[in-house]
Amino acid sequence: MLRQTYFSGPLRDPSSRPVFDSPPVFPRGFRCASRNVGLKPSARDLAVFASDVEAAAAAVFTRNHFPGAPIVLGRETMREGRLKGIVVNSKCSNVATGTRGVDHARRMAVAAAAELETTANRILVSSTGVIGVPLPIEKIEAGLVGIAGELQANPLIGAEGIMTTDTYAKALSLRVGDATITLVAKGSGMIEPNMATMLAYIFTDAALDARALDQILRATIESSFNMLSVDGDTSTSDTCAIMANGLAGPVDRGAFIEALNAGCVRMTEMLARDGEGAEHLLRATVCDAANDSEARMVAKALVNSPLVKTMVHGADPNVGRILMAVGKCFECHVEPARTQAWINGHQVVRDGARVDFEDDLVRRTLRQETVDIEVSLGVGNARATAYGCDLTAGYIEENAAYYSS
Amino acid sequence: MLRQTYFSGPLRDPSSRPVFDSPPVFPRGFRCASRNVGLKPSARDLAVFASDVEAAAAAVFTRNHFPGAPIVLGRETMREGRLKGIVVNSKCSNVATGTRGVDHARRMAVAAAAELETTANRILVSSTGVIGVPLPIEKIEAGLVGIAGELQANPLIGAEGIMTTDTYAKALSLRVGDATITLVAKGSGMIEPNMATMLAYIFTDAALDARALDQILRATIESSFNMLSVDGDTSTSDTCAIMANGLAGPVDRGAFIEALNAGCVRMTEMLARDGEGAEHLLRATVCDAANDSEARMVAKALVNSPLVKTMVHGADPNVGRILMAVGKCFECHVEPARTQAWINGHQVVRDGARVDFEDDLVRRTLRQETVDIEVSLGVGNARATAYGCDLTAGYIEENAAYYSS
Repeated sequence: MLRQTYFSGPLRDPSSRPVFDSPPVFPRGFRCASRNVGLKPSARDLAVFASDVEAAAAAVFTRNHFPGAPIVLGRETMREGRLKGIVVNSKCSNVATGTRGVDHARRMAVAAAAELETTANRILVSSTGVIGVPLPIEKIEAGLVGIAGELQANPLIGAEGIMTTDTYAKALSLRVGDATITLVAKGSGMIEPNMATMLAYIFTDAALDARALDQILRATIESSFNMLSVDGDTSTSDTCAIMANGLAGPVDRGAFIEALNAGCVRMTEMLARDGEGAEHLLRATVCDAANDSEARMVAKALVNSPLVKTMVHGADPNVGRILMAVGKCFECHVEPARTQAWINGHQVVRDGARVDFEDDLVRRTLRQETVDIEVSLGVGNARATAYGCDLTAGYIEENAAYYSS
Repeated sequence: MLRQTYFSGPLRDPSSRPVFDSPPVFPRGFRCASRNVGLKPSARDLAVFASDVEAAAAAVFTRNHFPGAPIVLGRETMREGRLKGIVVNSKCSNVATGTRGVDHARRMAVAAAAELETTANRILVSSTGVIGVPLPIEKIEAGLVGIAGELQANPLIGAEGIMTTDTYAKALSLRVGDATITLVAKGSGMIEPNMATMLAYIFTDAALDARALDQILRATIESSFNMLSVDGDTSTSDTCAIMANGLAGPVDRGAFIEALNAGCVRMTEMLARDGEGAEHLLRATVCDAANDSEARMVAKALVNSPLVKTMVHGADPNVGRILMAVGKCFECHVEPARTQAWINGHQVVRDGARVDFEDDLVRRTLRQETVDIEVSLGVGNARATAYGCDLTAGYIEENAAYYSS
C-alpha cells in the first residue's frame, strides 16, 4: 500500500538536495546586530542587517488593504532597487497608526542610516507585532545609537531580534558556486501570504542586478512562501526582501534559482512547523490537477482546513475530511471517482471512497512530526505543494491574549 | 462613542421582531419520533419527521464535490417536489462510501416509506456523522420498525435524534397569519455553508406549491444559513429542506417570507452560538460596501478569521485584527481612510486607524455572550451580516478525536 512518490520538500529526500550550512553563516560583506531597546521587557526587539557595500535589492510586500506604515515607506524605498541595510523592530507593527506611523517609519530609517553611514532611502524598515499601537520611536532611535559597533557575522543574532511568537530564531544558508545565500525569517501566526509573507530577508554575495532579483524573487516565492499558511490570515506587515552585494561575482543563474528555491522551501517548512502552537509540519501535495491554479487552491484548502488540521493534531484517521476539504473547492475540476489520497504514502482514499485501511497504521503515521497528505485529482498534470501545520489548543492560548500579554 | 445602529439579528431588538413560540410546536399535521437504534451507545440516533398528508417540498444541498450518498439520492427525490416524510440518522454520514452507500440510502427510504405508508420517492433521507464509514443499514432498518406508532407533536424529540456534537436539541416555531413555521436543525462543526447548510428542516401548514417553496427557500437562506460559518469547512451532507402541507390554507406571501427569514436567522444564530467549543455568538455586519457580494465576502472574512475569533474568545481588545481581516479581502473595494469599525456599538477604528479607546471598556463588551462587530467600508450602500462564533480549545478537543470517540 506504500506509494513511491516524489515530494518537493527537502526534508523527505535530503540526499538529492542542496546541503545547508550548520550553523548558518552570512555571505561575504553582510553582518547584523540586535538589541533590547525596551519594547519588550528583556528579549531582543531591534535588529539591523547591513552590507559593507551597497547592494542591489528587491522586495515583495503584503497585499493586505491595510499595509503597515513600514510597507508604505518600503514600497517607496524599493523603487530604486538599492539597499545598504535593513532595520526591524518586533513587539509593535506600526500598522493602523495613520500618517504619524509613516513619520515614525521614516525616522527609523534615518536613525539606522546614520549608523550605517548611508542615506535613509537605502534602508528598508520593517516592524512586526501588535497592530494599532503607536511605535515607541524614541526608544528605537535611542536604541539604535552605537549598534554599528556590534555588527557581527552570525545571522542568528539578527534572527533573534525579529522574533514575535516564534519559538526559536530562524536562519539558514547554502552555497551556490562561489556565492552564499542566507535567509533570516520570522513567522508564526497570521500567515497566509499572498505576494509576500511574514518577514523574510535574503542575503547573497552573488552579483545580480535589481531587475533580475525582482524576477527571481517573485518566481521563487510562488512555490515557497506563498504556499505557506498557518491560519489563513494575512498579515499587514508581510515583507520578503533580497539583497545581493555582488562580492562573490556572477553566478550561474539557473543554479542560483535552484539554490534560492531550496532555501525558500526549507525556510517555509521551518516557519510552518513553528506555526503558533504547532506540533506537526503538514505538507499537502496535489497532483494531476487541471491546472496550476487549481492545484494550488486545493493544496491550500487542505492545509487551511481546521478539520484536517485537528485530524493531524489528534492523529485521528478521520480521512473523509481530506475529501471534504478537496470537495469544498467549488470552482475546481474534481471528479470523485478519479480522486486518490495518501497519508505519508499510505493510500487512504481510492476512487473517491475511503480505503478499508488499518486504523492503527494510519494513526501511527499521523504521529510523525511531518505529515504528508497527497491527493491525486486524476484530471490533468498540474502539481502544487502547500505548507501548514496542525491546529492545537496552543494556537488558541497564544492568540486569545496576544495584545494583553 | 456608542453608535445607534440597526442590526439584522432578532436577539438585539426583539420588540420589532416576530415572537417565537416557547416551547416550539409543529404546524398542523406534522409529527416526529426518534429512537436509539444502536449507532450511538445510548443517545437517540434516528429521527423521522412526517406529515399526515403529502406536502409540497423543496430542498437545497451542499455544493461540496463529494456529496454524501443521501444527497445523491435526495437530488433525485426532490425532482418531484413532493414529500411525505424525512428520515435522518446521526453518527454516520454515509459519505465516501461508493455505490453501496447509495444503495443503503435507498434502503433507508424504503424502510421509512413502509412506516409512513407512502413510497420511497416521497421520503427525503439524511445522514450526519463520520465520513467514510459504511452505514449500518441493518440496524437502521430494524430500528425503523414500529416508529410510526411513536410519532408525536413535539419537534424537540426529532431534533434530539439528529444531533452530533450539538450541545442541545434545536427547534423553533413562529406564526404567520393562521399558519405556523417550524424549524428543526443540527449544526456544530464543518459549517461554512454554500447553497445549503448543516441539516435544517422547515415545516409549515401554509399552502405553497413546490416552485414557490424553492424560490422562497433559496432567497431566504442567502441571508441566513449561507451566512453562517463555524470553521470555514463545508460539510458533505449539508441539507436544508422545506415541507408545506397546506392544512392552514393560503397565507400572505410577503408575510410568510418575512416570518421564514426571521426563523432562519434565529436558527442561524442558535447554530453559530452552539458551534463546536463556542462560548460567544460572533455577528459581523458590513455596511456601506461597494456591492452585496463584497459585503458578504468581508463579513464572512471577519467571522472566519482565526485571529478575530480568538480575540473574541480572549476578550482581548486587539482590534487591529479587524482591519487585518477586512484588508485580506484583496478583491474587494476597501479604502483604509474611509473604514470605520465598532464592537457592540463602541467605535474602535476611525478612518482606518485604531481609536484611542479605553481597553477595559472594550474588554468588558467583548465578554458579552453576543459580540457584534460592525464595519463601515464607506464606499457604497450594500450591507450583509455573517454569523459565527469564537475559536476555543474546546473546538480543538472535539475535533482532534472525533472519529475515535
